[in-house]
Amino acid sequence: MIETQIMPNFLLKRFFLTPERPAIYFSGVTYSFSEVYKRAYTIAGQLQALELQRGQYAGVLLRNHVDTAFILLALQLIDVKAVILNNRLTAEELIWQMNDSQSAYLLTERAFEEVSQNITNSVPAVSAILKEKLFESSYTDPEIAEEISLDEVCTVMYTSGTTGNPKGVLQTYGNHWWSAIGSALNLGLSENDSWLCTVPLFHISGYSILMRSIVYGMKIVLFESFDEKKAIDAIHSGKVTIMSVVSTMLTRIADELREEKLPDFFRCMLLGGGPAAKSLLEICKAKDIPVYQTYGMTETSSQIVTLAPEYSFSKLGSAGKPLFPSQLKIVAANGQNANPDEAGEIFVKGPNVTKGYLNREEETSKRIKDGWLSTGDIGYLDTEGFLYVLDRRSDLIISGGENIYPAEIEGVLVSHPSIADAGVIGMKDDVWGEVPVAFVAGEVLDEEEITQYCLGKLAKYKVPKRILQIDKIPRNASKKILRRKLRDLLEESGK
Amino acid sequence: MIETQIMPNFLLKRFFLTPERPAIYFSGVTYSFSEVYKRAYTIAGQLQALELQRGQYAGVLLRNHVDTAFILLALQLIDVKAVILNNRLTAEELIWQMNDSQSAYLLTERAFEEVSQNITNSVPAVSAILKEKLFESSYTDPEIAEEISLDEVCTVMYTSGTTGNPKGVLQTYGNHWWSAIGSALNLGLSENDSWLCTVPLFHISGYSILMRSIVYGMKIVLFESFDEKKAIDAIHSGKVTIMSVVSTMLTRIADELREEKLPDFFRCMLLGGGPAAKSLLEICKAKDIPVYQTYGMTETSSQIVTLAPEYSFSKLGSAGKPLFPSQLKIVAANGQNANPDEAGEIFVKGPNVTKGYLNREEETSKRIKDGWLSTGDIGYLDTEGFLYVLDRRSDLIISGGENIYPAEIEGVLVSHPSIADAGVIGMKDDVWGEVPVAFVAGEVLDEEEITQYCLGKLAKYKVPKRILQIDKIPRNASKKILRRKLRDLLEESGK
Repeated sequence: MIETQIMPNFLLKRFFLTPERPAIYFSGVTYSFSEVYKRAYTIAGQLQALELQRGQYAGVLLRNHVDTAFILLALQLIDVKAVILNNRLTAEELIWQMNDSQSAYLLTERAFEEVSQNITNSVPAVSAILKEKLFESSYTDPEIAEEISLDEVCTVMYTSGTTGNPKGVLQTYGNHWWSAIGSALNLGLSENDSWLCTVPLFHISGYSILMRSIVYGMKIVLFESFDEKKAIDAIHSGKVTIMSVVSTMLTRIADELREEKLPDFFRCMLLGGGPAAKSLLEICKAKDIPVYQTYGMTETSSQIVTLAPEYSFSKLGSAGKPLFPSQLKIVAANGQNANPDEAGEIFVKGPNVTKGYLNREEETSKRIKDGWLSTGDIGYLDTEGFLYVLDRRSDLIISGGENIYPAEIEGVLVSHPSIADAGVIGMKDDVWGEVPVAFVAGEVLDEEEITQYCLGKLAKYKVPKRILQIDKIPRNASKKILRRKLRDLLEESGK
Repeated sequence: MIETQIMPNFLLKRFFLTPERPAIYFSGVTYSFSEVYKRAYTIAGQLQALELQRGQYAGVLLRNHVDTAFILLALQLIDVKAVILNNRLTAEELIWQMNDSQSAYLLTERAFEEVSQNITNSVPAVSAILKEKLFESSYTDPEIAEEISLDEVCTVMYTSGTTGNPKGVLQTYGNHWWSAIGSALNLGLSENDSWLCTVPLFHISGYSILMRSIVYGMKIVLFESFDEKKAIDAIHSGKVTIMSVVSTMLTRIADELREEKLPDFFRCMLLGGGPAAKSLLEICKAKDIPVYQTYGMTETSSQIVTLAPEYSFSKLGSAGKPLFPSQLKIVAANGQNANPDEAGEIFVKGPNVTKGYLNREEETSKRIKDGWLSTGDIGYLDTEGFLYVLDRRSDLIISGGENIYPAEIEGVLVSHPSIADAGVIGMKDDVWGEVPVAFVAGEVLDEEEITQYCLGKLAKYKVPKRILQIDKIPRNASKKILRRKLRDLLEESGK
């Protein structure tokens, strides 16, 4: 008797178990699970009155705000799948994702009214719903999805591949559930826990904090955006015990602390977005900041590998060991499992790993075989089984925690009438870790004009910070860009 | 794409993650997860050398001992299903279970040599393996089940039905996993946790502690049997934070404590085996013993409903609310869901609930429909969803059309200062059909005074029509009252 696992609706169950516990602190107000449930319930009724139906996909374009948490949870209550859109993207990028996901609705807010009109003009099948109007709209008692199947899709988040267009990563209720459980088995779980969320809810880093809140019955402190001074204040006043950061955020916190230390109850600084610099880890050690380094991605619904602080230095540069429910292997160039200390491609498996990409069966079956997802990342395991990630997908640029895929920028560049070919690489940056730099070949080009052109088509963080003109983009026999050669050229140009 | 959930072998993964952490303390020695794994690995090799094969069923007849933990975990390593036998049963009862489960092997020890010879004489297909001989037998590197499916059977434990022969309850790896997770989400999880196991490993109460140790990476302190003085000592010296008990054990601990208190780090006394007497809860409150009352059974792989200490008195007699992954409903006599405060049969559903009984398809499909298990127990939910278990259906006394639940009367009786323990059964009555009869143990008692005491607390029809004093209320290994024996005593007393 093999069956998908059926579970009570997460929010409904959490409300039933611990209605009075604090759930979300936002902008001076604390909302209990009862209040969160009731708000989400009302919104669910308003959405159903607008004819959103169970099983449909709906785009969500919202800023970090307690309303966003209510809306995302309302969608779970009625089992509408949220296509969660990165709100830094351009209209063109968003239109592509709305088309690709065949979302019938776009839940957004006044601040994005212009871009949402752009979207509805381009994709007439989409109805945009502004939260300001939604919250005043008529209401019927919603039909709640009292049970959900762990195999059902809960959210979709887009990531770009090495080539071509972004793909929608399917994240099931089970993916989120197991991610939360794997993390709890590693970090422990206390009713005094409180998780500070200054990362975007539209990223898995932020959304996974919201899910943990519901699964654990844990308070989250939600910020509209990151600010190191306010974060430190909130840790003290909000009795925050855990915070998710990327390196740039941690650096700013460490700087801001000066001689001060974080309070004793603060027990975990969960650091994602690539291996940390030794210098940063040393600073954190001196300041008693308990840094847990992690490795994860949209496809694994947040962290899948985590390193406890006691290993920060003995295993410097390691991301740790895979969480209890998950497995990891390194496949060498010959297709066999790599030996210890031998580099190869990282494959992951487990109940937190996506079952594939939305409407992309071919890509899915190429990336996932027998439950193993090929991450495209390169790394090795030491003799004790600690993972060292050498390179995120040979070409991936990570800038302030955002993934930037060169192929996407290159696609935009070559769409410019004067550009014949283009290649993009990352350049070290003190503030962001890395920033994109473009090489272009073609007619005599005006850098400023190209930058403006990119700003119309790409989120700002993706726009190249430098544009260098060369005669010919170096490519190998199979026409793949030789990024190593571009890096040499960048070096020669004196950076 | 619906698939059974595949997971890494639990012990193998735990050994990989935290090899140096303490796993089991037994009789003066602490074993790390590395040591536990290595012992289990060796035993797995010895068992495979004796031709035990993956997927087979093997009887296990052993006392509480660290060796028993090693053997039970060795069976998990090679995915042999353990039919865990209650070692207080007679040879006849054991023979019945070995026959029923078609176990090819019986893993036992010198202390049970006589009974095991009885078994092999009666069931020639069974090979008995004494642990003392096994541990000296030849060894080959075992073929470990590196992955297990959560849908696969891990253990079988027999329970007596309301009628007929005992049935083997199938407990999958998933049942045990989800039980551990549901408990952690309720009680929290700390790397400083240590769980005292003085209950039998052959019961789900004990086996589930062993499973939690592996899933959480938590130390357990294992006793051969319960002793209140040693338990209190172990709580102090072993930094025990959680202990599983039934009422009689808790009473003895509370008595033994006298003016003393348990240390601050002790955070949970998990009380199973039926609702606790108010007097006992009052004593525990006075002594700051944090009692979590629970409801569970072999079919739910341990607790499925738990009441936090803050509700001990405001929800007196309640077992609490179902754990996060689980659901519960009350079905009234008309087959519909009962209203709040209306009694009916308790049904449970969830990933910790058994998928059925070994080789009993008919019984399974009778007891489990659409994932809902009919427990045979009677109870109700109050308006806030707290469960009150009234009694086992088989024990229900129906008198003049009124339902009488023995547990309710027993609760009143044991609240009398002179009554240590009590058991109530129904007696045939020409006028009313049945009337309740009480057996009490304690000081020399005055029947008339007890009757008056009950009349002050119970509707007249519930007051026992006879009160018989005996030395000790007969209870089984899990401390449930053996009402059948009380019926025999009643018969002998000439009614």
